[in-house]
Amino acid sequence: MRIAVDAMGGDNAPHEIVAGCVEASGLLTNEDELILFGPEGVIKEQLFSHKYDPARIRIVDAPEIIGMDEPPVDALRKKKHSSINIMNKMAGDSQVDAVISAGNTGACVAASQMRMRNLEGINRPGIAVVIPTVSGPVTICDVGANIVCKPINLYQYAVMASLYSKNTLGIASPRIGIMSIGEEDAKGNETVKKAREFIKADPNLSFVGNIEGRDIFKGACDVAICDGFVGNVVLKLMEGMVDGLFRAIKHELLQENFLLAWRFKSVMMRIYKKYDYHEYGGAPLLGVNGTSVICHGSSKVRTIKNAIMKSKLYHTQKINEQIVKYIATSSVRPTDE
Amino acid sequence: MRIAVDAMGGDNAPHEIVAGCVEASGLLTNEDELILFGPEGVIKEQLFSHKYDPARIRIVDAPEIIGMDEPPVDALRKKKHSSINIMNKMAGDSQVDAVISAGNTGACVAASQMRMRNLEGINRPGIAVVIPTVSGPVTICDVGANIVCKPINLYQYAVMASLYSKNTLGIASPRIGIMSIGEEDAKGNETVKKAREFIKADPNLSFVGNIEGRDIFKGACDVAICDGFVGNVVLKLMEGMVDGLFRAIKHELLQENFLLAWRFKSVMMRIYKKYDYHEYGGAPLLGVNGTSVICHGSSKVRTIKNAIMKSKLYHTQKINEQIVKYIATSSVRPTDE
Repeated sequence: MRIAVDAMGGDNAPHEIVAGCVEASGLLTNEDELILFGPEGVIKEQLFSHKYDPARIRIVDAPEIIGMDEPPVDALRKKKHSSINIMNKMAGDSQVDAVISAGNTGACVAASQMRMRNLEGINRPGIAVVIPTVSGPVTICDVGANIVCKPINLYQYAVMASLYSKNTLGIASPRIGIMSIGEEDAKGNETVKKAREFIKADPNLSFVGNIEGRDIFKGACDVAICDGFVGNVVLKLMEGMVDGLFRAIKHELLQENFLLAWRFKSVMMRIYKKYDYHEYGGAPLLGVNGTSVICHGSSKVRTIKNAIMKSKLYHTQKINEQIVKYIATSSVRPTDE
Repeated sequence: MRIAVDAMGGDNAPHEIVAGCVEASGLLTNEDELILFGPEGVIKEQLFSHKYDPARIRIVDAPEIIGMDEPPVDALRKKKHSSINIMNKMAGDSQVDAVISAGNTGACVAASQMRMRNLEGINRPGIAVVIPTVSGPVTICDVGANIVCKPINLYQYAVMASLYSKNTLGIASPRIGIMSIGEEDAKGNETVKKAREFIKADPNLSFVGNIEGRDIFKGACDVAICDGFVGNVVLKLMEGMVDGLFRAIKHELLQENFLLAWRFKSVMMRIYKKYDYHEYGGAPLLGVNGTSVICHGSSKVRTIKNAIMKSKLYHTQKINEQIVKYIATSSVRPTDE
């Protein structure tokens, strides 16, 4: 399998990205190849400090860099020789089997959509993120690819995220919930209500109905569906909140007792590790005709390594083929888009 | 001032509600009167166990009770003699000056809108909740009254929440952010983009632009504006997350060391208290022609006491008059609704 990695994507590029590739290369088989995209000189310099098997890592020169905050479509048009542009084009031409980037999310989504096209039967792709909770991992889809959803999009997210959860987390029959503002069927906006009818009508999905924000942490579902606006707000809120809460705890502990704070630190580190999204590597863009994994801008060595292994799992489990087959034979045939 | 309280609203009614009223009655002046709404016998029985000044607490019999999960409009139509119905009707007839309930939120919003009507110039009311954070309190509006917003609604939430923050939290010039999915102006859906133009065009508002979920805990703004769907998801997510995170910490601490867990408990209780939304009492329904305060379903004695004091502050600060005046003289005159 040929896995393309954007060496220049994210806040810790290129060093953490390249180091993550080197680590992952040791875990891959002889049939696998990692292809790093970015300015050749920069990547070579980074690789110089590592021990690795040159047969497993190749460089494709991509001299231009898309910044984290550049307007995606504009940047893609202007920077033809950027890593994000080139690697997604090669994926579209079947020259690589998966693309991974911790760079500009909007640009990654746009490039993958444009170059890979959508899977047969899929109207809009969605990003699926796995959130670790005390009650187990919860997959949220979409978290930002599609901010104005139609009911059919939400139905397809339910199908795709469910297959993803099953194949990568080993959850036999993922319980699907739809994010809304109350448990009763009558609650929610029109899109949510219509999407709920679609999901409910599909006998092959395990649907638990509406879920509220708090239910995510209570083990109420394995998959949570929402539009990309809500999902993105939710995702960033969680991040900010974990950070804010730990800061508050630290502040209080330090006021009380330095030793207690010090002892709590090790516990906190363990919790951080256990409920750390870096563990899950990256988030696949479900619905494109290929394997596109988007990583957090703050990705580190471990994140990239895990994202590479995840992209391999995604590919070998043939999740895309399963999605196409599911949609083709689904009894639910929404016609509003 | 005549303050109406729904004695039957919330999970801890009537005992915690009535006890909260008794506590608050000691803090009110001779000109104030608390009026409890609910089945007369039930309230009398509750009051029997308390010491209070009977001149300060009066009962209005409301034999019917609207359940927490009843469909709001339906319940209001069927249960004419419910506390929520009667007290809002009396507010509309100027027989009481404020209404407070920890009951069915949808029913409270609908009843206040129907009976009090909107303030002059206001298109749709919104619920404003104050969230305690390490960086100070943040007011979020709307959290569930209006799930499909137009740009004008968001603009008016910015105006109202700003005046509310100024008058009740003492923040001289509240920095307003609009919840979106990226900091750049180009990010967000069409409603958010248009609303941003309105807020930006108003020289009297202190606007910081787009904020993301994580910014709420970083002190990036004092007021966060969003539609009621997003706000409600966010609010409940925060609740669930605090709970989930504390459970995770407890679990880890207990595995490590019982004594450490025990010592941490007292710190945790202090944090809970410090960042406890009960402290802020309740959430006003901004934009109705009256004072309507909605409390969390899990409200306790302290929540109700604080909500009563807050309703008095809201009333005496003449926030509604300030809103009407502001809107009437605002240079921003949205015409899309």
